[in-house]
Amino acid sequence: MTDASCIFCKIIAGELPAEMVYQDEQVSAFRDLHPKAPIHILIVPNMHIPSTNELTSQDVTIAGHLLAAAPKIAEIEGIFERGYRLIANTGRDGRQEVPHLHVHFLGGQPMQHPLG
Amino acid sequence: MTDASCIFCKIIAGELPAEMVYQDEQVSAFRDLHPKAPIHILIVPNMHIPSTNELTSQDVTIAGHLLAAAPKIAEIEGIFERGYRLIANTGRDGRQEVPHLHVHFLGGQPMQHPLG
Repeated sequence: MTDASCIFCKIIAGELPAEMVYQDEQVSAFRDLHPKAPIHILIVPNMHIPSTNELTSQDVTIAGHLLAAAPKIAEIEGIFERGYRLIANTGRDGRQEVPHLHVHFLGGQPMQHPLG
Repeated sequence: MTDASCIFCKIIAGELPAEMVYQDEQVSAFRDLHPKAPIHILIVPNMHIPSTNELTSQDVTIAGHLLAAAPKIAEIEGIFERGYRLIANTGRDGRQEVPHLHVHFLGGQPMQHPLG
């Protein structure tokens, strides 16, 4: 299921360019065009799910793959031991910008900003 | 599987007090003692998993439940429409503090801090 107007669906389909870091049957991970840390990668479900608010019991496995991809990406980026931060924003208060569920993978330096 | 020295395992088992917001067979969610936002809840797997780095293919369903619990908690807290931010810190660079995988659920105001 894809959304023809969705920029992330187009990246996953290879219709828009992106530096893909990791991809499998469930999720894709590509570099953010405007990195907020030395390493800033977006992990997204290949299926179009607008946000965590739309996760149903049928999507639990896909949601799990979003988090389980993180250590694989950390290995690829060489920061498995150093660590990283994952952030998923939902809705207005969360400051979600693209309406396709995505987990920010941030690393390469100690995180600079507090939570919240 | 629990870790006898783990503060979150003790909270899940009811051996340490916490304000439990949501709990099911897979995950527990309770208020952070030092909230960084008006609503600050920790979503944790009931099973002791140190961090996202230790997620295996067998844990994908549990990991998915961590994210799928977020909209349920948002409903309980009355901020489903307004939205929220989820953060999981791993390792030193991520500034993880408790070595039991946890997702910070932050809401109740527009998020104040940038990513990274």
